[in-house]
Amino acid sequence: MKIAILLFNNFTALDVVGPYEVLSRLPDTKIYFVGPDKKDYEDSYGLKMLAEYSINDISEADVLLIPGGYGVDDILKNTEIIEWIKKIDRTSKWTVSVCSGALLLAEAGLLIDKKCTTHWKRKDQLRNYKVDVINERYVHDGKIITSAGVSAGIDMALYMVSIIENEQAAKMIQLSIEYDPNPPFDCGSPDKVPQEMIDKLKK
Amino acid sequence: MKIAILLFNNFTALDVVGPYEVLSRLPDTKIYFVGPDKKDYEDSYGLKMLAEYSINDISEADVLLIPGGYGVDDILKNTEIIEWIKKIDRTSKWTVSVCSGALLLAEAGLLIDKKCTTHWKRKDQLRNYKVDVINERYVHDGKIITSAGVSAGIDMALYMVSIIENEQAAKMIQLSIEYDPNPPFDCGSPDKVPQEMIDKLKK
Repeated sequence: MKIAILLFNNFTALDVVGPYEVLSRLPDTKIYFVGPDKKDYEDSYGLKMLAEYSINDISEADVLLIPGGYGVDDILKNTEIIEWIKKIDRTSKWTVSVCSGALLLAEAGLLIDKKCTTHWKRKDQLRNYKVDVINERYVHDGKIITSAGVSAGIDMALYMVSIIENEQAAKMIQLSIEYDPNPPFDCGSPDKVPQEMIDKLKK
Repeated sequence: MKIAILLFNNFTALDVVGPYEVLSRLPDTKIYFVGPDKKDYEDSYGLKMLAEYSINDISEADVLLIPGGYGVDDILKNTEIIEWIKKIDRTSKWTVSVCSGALLLAEAGLLIDKKCTTHWKRKDQLRNYKVDVINERYVHDGKIITSAGVSAGIDMALYMVSIIENEQAAKMIQLSIEYDPNPPFDCGSPDKVPQEMIDKLKK
Protein backbone atom coordinates (compact mmCIF):
# COMPACT_ATOMS: atom_id res chain seq x y z
CA MET A 1 0.00 0.00 0.00
CA LYS A 2 1.34 3.40 -1.03
CA ILE A 3 0.42 6.21 1.36
CA ALA A 4 1.23 9.83 0.44
CA ILE A 5 1.24 12.41 3.25
CA LEU A 6 1.46 16.08 2.29
CA LEU A 7 3.87 18.33 4.21
CA PHE A 8 4.00 22.12 4.01
CA ASN A 9 5.31 24.96 6.15
CA ASN A 10 3.29 25.59 9.30
CA PHE A 11 1.71 22.14 9.30
CA THR A 12 0.63 20.64 12.64
CA ALA A 13 3.07 17.87 13.55
CA LEU A 14 0.60 15.65 15.42
CA ASP A 15 -1.86 15.80 12.48
CA VAL A 16 0.85 13.96 10.54
CA VAL A 17 2.48 11.75 13.14
CA GLY A 18 -0.72 10.53 14.87
CA PRO A 19 -2.08 8.74 11.79
CA TYR A 20 1.44 7.96 10.52
CA GLU A 21 2.25 5.99 13.69
CA VAL A 22 -0.85 3.84 13.06
CA LEU A 23 -0.84 3.53 9.25
CA SER A 24 2.90 2.83 8.97
CA ARG A 25 2.23 -0.45 10.82
CA LEU A 26 -0.07 -1.74 8.03
CA PRO A 27 1.53 -4.70 6.25
CA ASP A 28 3.36 -4.05 2.95
CA THR A 29 3.01 -0.32 3.28
CA LYS A 30 5.31 2.52 2.38
CA ILE A 31 4.70 6.08 3.46
CA TYR A 32 5.77 8.90 1.13
CA PHE A 33 6.21 12.32 2.71
CA VAL A 34 5.54 14.75 -0.11
CA GLY A 35 6.13 18.48 -0.12
CA PRO A 36 5.81 21.25 -2.69
CA ASP A 37 9.58 20.69 -2.90
CA LYS A 38 11.88 17.94 -1.64
CA LYS A 39 13.12 19.52 1.60
CA ASP A 40 12.50 19.98 5.32
CA TYR A 41 9.17 21.51 6.35
CA GLU A 42 8.78 23.32 9.64
CA ASP A 43 5.67 23.03 11.77
CA SER A 44 4.30 25.95 13.80
CA TYR A 45 6.66 25.44 16.77
CA GLY A 46 10.05 24.66 15.19
CA LEU A 47 10.00 20.93 14.44
CA LYS A 48 11.43 20.03 11.02
CA MET A 49 10.32 16.98 9.07
CA LEU A 50 11.73 15.87 5.74
CA ALA A 51 9.66 15.57 2.57
CA GLU A 52 11.75 13.06 0.64
CA TYR A 53 9.53 13.58 -2.40
CA SER A 54 8.20 16.62 -4.20
CA ILE A 55 4.72 16.75 -5.70
CA ASN A 56 6.38 16.25 -9.09
CA ASP A 57 7.75 12.87 -7.94
CA ILE A 58 4.42 11.40 -6.85
CA SER A 59 1.59 10.91 -9.33
CA GLU A 60 -0.52 8.28 -7.59
CA ALA A 61 -1.23 6.77 -4.16
CA ASP A 62 -3.57 4.28 -2.53
CA VAL A 63 -4.10 6.64 0.40
CA LEU A 64 -3.75 10.41 0.23
CA LEU A 65 -3.52 12.03 3.67
CA ILE A 66 -3.75 15.81 4.08
CA PRO A 67 -2.89 17.26 7.49
CA GLY A 68 -3.88 20.68 8.79
CA GLY A 69 -2.22 23.54 10.56
CA TYR A 70 -1.95 27.30 10.35
CA GLY A 71 -0.18 26.85 6.99
CA VAL A 72 -3.41 25.62 5.40
CA ASP A 73 -4.55 29.17 4.65
CA ASP A 74 -1.52 29.72 2.42
CA ILE A 75 -1.90 26.38 0.69
CA LEU A 76 -5.57 27.15 -0.08
CA LYS A 77 -4.27 29.80 -2.52
CA ASN A 78 -1.58 27.53 -4.01
CA THR A 79 -3.16 26.20 -7.20
CA GLU A 80 -0.25 23.85 -7.90
CA ILE A 81 -0.84 21.99 -4.62
CA ILE A 82 -4.62 22.01 -5.00
CA GLU A 83 -4.23 20.56 -8.51
CA TRP A 84 -1.86 17.90 -7.14
CA ILE A 85 -4.45 16.92 -4.50
CA LYS A 86 -7.07 16.55 -7.26
CA LYS A 87 -4.67 14.48 -9.37
CA ILE A 88 -3.73 12.07 -6.57
CA ASP A 89 -7.35 11.75 -5.49
CA ARG A 90 -8.21 10.48 -9.00
CA THR A 91 -5.88 7.51 -8.31
CA SER A 92 -6.56 6.91 -4.60
CA LYS A 93 -8.66 4.29 -2.86
CA TRP A 94 -8.92 6.62 0.16
CA THR A 95 -8.53 10.38 0.42
CA VAL A 96 -8.41 11.56 4.02
CA SER A 97 -7.73 14.65 6.09
CA VAL A 98 -6.89 15.56 9.65
CA CYS A 99 -7.97 18.82 11.26
CA SER A 100 -8.00 21.83 8.91
CA GLY A 101 -6.65 19.62 6.11
CA ALA A 102 -10.35 19.20 5.23
CA LEU A 103 -10.31 22.76 3.86
CA LEU A 104 -7.75 21.71 1.25
CA LEU A 105 -9.95 18.78 0.21
CA ALA A 106 -12.92 21.17 0.00
CA GLU A 107 -10.93 23.67 -2.08
CA ALA A 108 -10.01 20.80 -4.42
CA GLY A 109 -13.74 20.13 -4.86
CA LEU A 110 -13.53 16.70 -3.24
CA LEU A 111 -16.09 17.31 -0.48
CA ILE A 112 -19.03 18.58 -2.57
CA ASP A 113 -22.25 17.40 -0.85
CA LYS A 114 -20.14 15.12 1.38
CA LYS A 115 -20.52 14.64 5.10
CA CYS A 116 -17.25 15.77 6.66
CA THR A 117 -15.60 17.34 9.68
CA THR A 118 -12.60 19.44 10.72
CA HIS A 119 -11.10 21.15 13.79
CA TRP A 120 -13.91 22.80 15.80
CA LYS A 121 -12.32 26.23 15.17
CA ARG A 122 -12.46 25.69 11.41
CA LYS A 123 -16.04 24.46 11.04
CA ASP A 124 -17.48 27.84 10.00
CA GLN A 125 -14.74 28.23 7.40
CA LEU A 126 -15.49 24.73 6.04
CA ARG A 127 -19.21 25.57 5.83
CA ASN A 128 -18.35 28.19 3.18
CA TYR A 129 -17.97 25.25 0.79
CA LYS A 130 -20.96 23.20 -0.39
CA VAL A 131 -20.43 20.47 2.18
CA ASP A 132 -22.28 18.90 5.10
CA VAL A 133 -20.16 19.58 8.22
CA ILE A 134 -21.07 17.27 11.08
CA ASN A 135 -19.88 16.81 14.65
CA GLU A 136 -18.08 13.50 14.86
CA ARG A 137 -14.55 12.44 15.77
CA TYR A 138 -14.13 11.25 12.16
CA VAL A 139 -16.54 11.02 9.25
CA HIS A 140 -16.50 8.44 6.45
CA ASP A 141 -18.39 9.28 3.27
CA GLY A 142 -17.60 7.25 0.16
CA LYS A 143 -13.83 7.12 -0.19
CA ILE A 144 -13.37 10.31 1.83
CA ILE A 145 -12.60 10.24 5.55
CA THR A 146 -12.14 13.50 7.47
CA SER A 147 -11.29 13.87 11.12
CA ALA A 148 -11.68 16.49 13.82
CA GLY A 149 -8.72 18.47 15.18
CA VAL A 150 -5.11 17.33 15.59
CA SER A 151 -5.31 14.30 17.91
CA ALA A 152 -8.41 12.94 16.12
CA GLY A 153 -6.17 11.60 13.35
CA ILE A 154 -5.15 8.73 15.64
CA ASP A 155 -8.74 7.59 16.08
CA MET A 156 -9.40 8.00 12.36
CA ALA A 157 -6.32 5.99 11.41
CA LEU A 158 -7.31 3.07 13.64
CA TYR A 159 -10.72 3.08 11.97
CA MET A 160 -8.97 3.16 8.56
CA VAL A 161 -6.89 0.09 9.44
CA SER A 162 -10.08 -1.72 10.45
CA ILE A 163 -11.63 -1.15 7.02
CA ILE A 164 -8.45 -1.37 4.88
CA GLU A 165 -7.13 -4.49 6.62
CA ASN A 166 -9.46 -5.79 9.36
CA GLU A 167 -10.55 -5.12 12.94
CA GLN A 168 -7.99 -7.44 14.43
CA ALA A 169 -5.14 -5.59 12.70
CA ALA A 170 -6.45 -2.28 14.07
CA LYS A 171 -6.68 -3.72 17.57
CA MET A 172 -3.13 -5.07 17.41
CA ILE A 173 -1.83 -1.65 16.36
CA GLN A 174 -3.82 0.05 19.12
CA LEU A 175 -2.23 -2.30 21.65
CA SER A 176 1.26 -1.82 20.23
CA ILE A 177 1.03 1.98 20.56
CA GLU A 178 -0.62 1.48 23.98
CA TYR A 179 -3.46 3.76 22.94
CA ASP A 180 -5.54 3.54 26.09
CA PRO A 181 -6.06 7.29 26.43
CA ASN A 182 -6.45 8.77 29.87
CA PRO A 183 -6.05 12.55 29.77
CA PRO A 184 -5.93 14.25 33.17
CA PHE A 185 -8.86 16.52 32.20
CA ASP A 186 -12.04 16.07 30.17
CA CYS A 187 -12.07 19.21 28.08
CA GLY A 188 -10.92 18.18 24.59
CA SER A 189 -14.14 19.20 22.87
CA PRO A 190 -15.98 22.54 22.74
CA ASP A 191 -19.09 20.73 24.11
CA LYS A 192 -17.21 20.08 27.33
CA VAL A 193 -15.84 23.49 28.26
CA PRO A 194 -17.18 26.91 29.30
CA GLN A 195 -17.84 29.37 26.47
CA GLU A 196 -15.02 31.68 27.63
CA MET A 197 -12.41 29.00 26.83
CA ILE A 198 -13.78 28.71 23.31
CA ASP A 199 -13.87 32.48 22.86
CA LYS A 200 -10.27 32.81 24.06
CA LEU A 201 -8.98 30.22 21.55
CA LYS A 202 -11.05 31.68 18.71
CA LYS A 203 -9.38 35.09 19.11
CA MET B 1 11.44 27.38 29.34
CA LYS B 2 14.09 25.33 27.53
CA ILE B 3 12.97 21.81 26.60
CA ALA B 4 15.48 19.33 25.16
CA ILE B 5 14.12 16.29 23.31
CA LEU B 6 16.56 13.53 22.38
CA LEU B 7 16.40 12.05 18.88
CA PHE B 8 18.21 8.91 17.71
CA ASN B 9 17.83 6.41 14.90
CA ASN B 10 14.87 4.07 15.27
CA PHE B 11 13.04 6.35 17.69
CA THR B 12 9.23 6.19 17.81
CA ALA B 13 7.84 9.31 16.15
CA LEU B 14 4.68 9.62 18.26
CA ASP B 15 6.74 9.33 21.49
CA VAL B 16 8.30 12.62 20.41
CA VAL B 17 5.46 14.42 18.66
CA GLY B 18 2.69 13.59 21.17
CA PRO B 19 4.31 15.49 24.06
CA TYR B 20 5.91 18.00 21.68
CA GLU B 21 2.51 19.09 20.37
CA VAL B 22 1.42 19.82 23.96
CA LEU B 23 4.63 21.23 25.50
CA SER B 24 5.47 23.48 22.54
CA ARG B 25 2.31 25.46 23.40
CA LEU B 26 3.65 26.42 26.86
CA PRO B 27 4.34 30.18 27.01
CA ASP B 28 7.94 31.38 26.49
CA THR B 29 9.14 27.92 25.55
CA LYS B 30 11.66 26.74 23.02
CA ILE B 31 12.07 23.10 22.08
CA TYR B 32 15.57 21.85 21.20
CA PHE B 33 15.73 18.63 19.19
CA VAL B 34 19.06 17.12 20.12
CA GLY B 35 20.79 14.15 18.51
CA PRO B 36 24.14 12.44 18.94
CA ASP B 37 24.97 14.56 15.88
CA LYS B 38 23.27 17.50 14.22
CA LYS B 39 21.38 15.70 11.43
CA ASP B 40 18.16 13.94 10.41
CA TYR B 41 17.13 10.92 12.47
CA GLU B 42 14.91 8.22 11.03
CA ASP B 43 12.18 6.53 13.03
CA SER B 44 11.32 2.84 12.56
CA TYR B 45 9.05 3.40 9.53
CA GLY B 46 10.92 5.95 7.41
CA LEU B 47 9.98 9.35 8.84
CA LYS B 48 12.93 11.76 9.16
CA MET B 49 13.09 14.49 11.79
CA LEU B 50 15.88 17.02 12.16
CA ALA B 51 18.03 17.34 15.27
CA GLU B 52 19.17 20.96 14.91
CA TYR B 53 21.53 20.49 17.86
CA SER B 54 24.07 17.86 18.79
CA ILE B 55 24.61 16.71 22.38
CA ASN B 56 27.76 18.86 22.36
CA ASP B 57 25.67 21.98 21.73
CA ILE B 58 23.30 21.51 24.68
CA SER B 59 24.57 21.47 28.25
CA GLU B 60 21.45 22.32 30.22
CA ALA B 61 17.64 22.29 29.98
CA ASP B 62 14.61 22.95 32.14
CA VAL B 63 12.91 19.84 30.79
CA LEU B 64 14.74 16.80 29.40
CA LEU B 65 12.46 14.49 27.43
CA ILE B 66 13.65 11.03 26.35
CA PRO B 67 11.48 9.13 23.86
CA GLY B 68 11.56 5.41 23.22
CA GLY B 69 11.60 3.11 20.23
CA TYR B 70 13.44 0.08 18.95
CA GLY B 71 16.60 2.19 18.81
CA VAL B 72 16.71 2.39 22.62
CA ASP B 73 18.58 -0.91 22.85
CA ASP B 74 21.49 0.56 20.87
CA ILE B 75 21.51 3.77 22.88
CA LEU B 76 21.65 1.80 26.15
CA LYS B 77 25.19 0.81 25.15
CA ASN B 78 26.19 4.32 24.03
CA THR B 79 28.04 5.76 27.03
CA GLU B 80 28.36 9.19 25.46
CA ILE B 81 24.56 9.57 25.26
CA ILE B 82 24.00 8.08 28.71
CA GLU B 83 26.55 10.54 30.16
CA TRP B 84 24.79 13.40 28.35
CA ILE B 85 21.46 12.35 29.89
CA LYS B 86 23.10 12.39 33.34
CA LYS B 87 24.63 15.80 32.67
CA ILE B 88 21.40 17.44 31.50
CA ASP B 89 19.46 15.84 34.36
CA ARG B 90 21.77 17.62 36.82
CA THR B 91 20.48 20.93 35.39
CA SER B 92 16.82 20.06 34.76
CA LYS B 93 13.69 20.91 36.71
CA TRP B 94 11.99 17.90 35.11
CA THR B 95 13.42 14.75 33.53
CA VAL B 96 10.80 12.73 31.71
CA SER B 97 10.45 9.74 29.41
CA VAL B 98 7.90 8.26 27.05
CA CYS B 99 7.62 4.53 26.40
CA SER B 100 10.94 2.65 26.44
CA GLY B 101 12.80 5.92 26.97
CA ALA B 102 12.51 5.01 30.68
CA LEU B 103 15.22 2.38 30.10
CA LEU B 104 17.65 5.14 29.17
CA LEU B 105 16.81 7.04 32.36
CA ALA B 106 17.31 3.80 34.33
CA GLU B 107 20.64 3.12 32.62
CA ALA B 108 21.72 6.66 33.57
CA GLY B 109 20.93 5.79 37.20
CA LEU B 110 18.11 8.32 37.41
CA LEU B 111 15.35 5.90 38.42
CA ILE B 112 17.01 4.21 41.42
CA ASP B 113 14.25 3.35 43.93
CA LYS B 114 11.85 5.51 41.93
CA LYS B 115 8.28 4.65 41.00
CA CYS B 116 8.18 4.59 37.20
CA THR B 117 6.59 3.06 34.13
CA THR B 118 7.28 2.21 30.48
CA HIS B 119 5.67 0.46 27.49
CA TRP B 120 3.93 -2.74 28.70
CA LYS B 121 6.30 -4.82 26.52
CA ARG B 122 9.35 -3.29 28.24
CA LYS B 123 8.31 -3.63 31.88
CA ASP B 124 10.29 -6.83 32.52
CA GLN B 125 13.38 -5.22 31.00
CA LEU B 126 12.92 -2.15 33.20
CA ARG B 127 12.57 -4.38 36.29
CA ASN B 128 16.20 -5.45 35.76
CA TYR B 129 17.13 -2.08 37.22
CA LYS B 130 16.62 -1.20 40.90
CA VAL B 131 13.31 0.57 40.27
CA ASP B 132 9.67 0.27 41.25
CA VAL B 133 7.73 -0.36 38.02
CA ILE B 134 4.04 0.38 38.40
CA ASN B 135 0.99 0.21 36.15
CA GLU B 136 -0.17 3.73 35.47
CA ARG B 137 -0.56 5.85 32.36
CA TYR B 138 2.20 8.13 33.72
CA VAL B 139 4.08 8.19 37.00
CA HIS B 140 5.44 11.25 38.80
CA ASP B 141 8.13 10.68 41.43
CA GLY B 142 10.18 13.69 42.51
CA LYS B 143 11.34 15.50 39.40
CA ILE B 144 11.02 12.36 37.26
CA ILE B 145 7.91 11.63 35.19
CA THR B 146 7.72 8.46 33.09
CA SER B 147 4.88 7.40 30.84
CA ALA B 148 3.53 4.19 29.38
CA GLY B 149 3.87 3.33 25.68
CA VAL B 150 3.89 5.69 22.70
CA SER B 151 0.53 7.53 22.89
CA ALA B 152 0.79 7.92 26.70
CA GLY B 153 3.18 10.83 26.19
CA ILE B 154 0.22 13.04 25.27
CA ASP B 155 -1.52 12.38 28.60
CA MET B 156 1.77 12.86 30.48
CA ALA B 157 2.48 16.16 28.73
CA LEU B 158 -0.94 17.59 29.63
CA TYR B 159 -0.27 16.62 33.24
CA MET B 160 3.15 18.32 32.98
CA VAL B 161 1.58 21.56 31.75
CA SER B 162 -0.83 21.46 34.70
CA ILE B 163 2.07 21.34 37.17
CA ILE B 164 4.59 23.51 35.29
CA GLU B 165 2.05 26.21 34.40
CA ASN B 166 -1.44 25.54 35.76
CA GLU B 167 -4.54 23.42 35.17
CA GLN B 168 -6.23 26.05 33.06
CA ALA B 169 -3.26 26.18 30.68
CA ALA B 170 -3.37 22.39 30.31
CA LYS B 171 -7.10 22.48 29.61
CA MET B 172 -6.68 25.18 26.97
CA ILE B 173 -4.01 23.12 25.21
CA GLN B 174 -6.18 19.99 25.39
CA LEU B 175 -9.02 21.93 23.73
CA SER B 176 -6.74 23.43 21.08
CA ILE B 177 -5.48 19.98 20.02
CA GLU B 178 -9.07 18.68 20.32
CA TYR B 179 -7.89 15.83 22.51
CA ASP B 180 -11.22 14.19 23.20
CA PRO B 181 -10.06 10.67 22.41
CA ASN B 182 -12.56 8.21 20.99
CA PRO B 183 -10.77 5.18 19.57
CA PRO B 184 -13.00 2.75 17.64
CA PHE B 185 -11.88 -0.13 19.90
CA ASP B 186 -11.06 -0.48 23.60
CA CYS B 187 -7.91 -2.55 23.48
CA GLY B 188 -5.02 -0.17 24.10
CA SER B 189 -3.84 -1.87 27.27
CA PRO B 190 -2.75 -5.46 27.93
CA ASP B 191 -5.45 -5.66 30.68
CA LYS B 192 -8.11 -5.24 28.02
CA VAL B 193 -7.15 -7.88 25.43
CA PRO B 194 -6.94 -11.67 25.17
CA GLN B 195 -3.57 -13.21 26.11
CA GLU B 196 -2.94 -14.34 22.52
CA MET B 197 -2.77 -10.72 21.32
CA ILE B 198 -0.12 -9.99 23.96
CA ASP B 199 1.86 -13.11 23.07
CA LYS B 200 1.79 -12.23 19.37
CA LEU B 201 3.20 -8.73 19.98
CA LYS B 202 5.82 -10.00 22.43
CA LYS B 203 7.30 -12.34 19.82
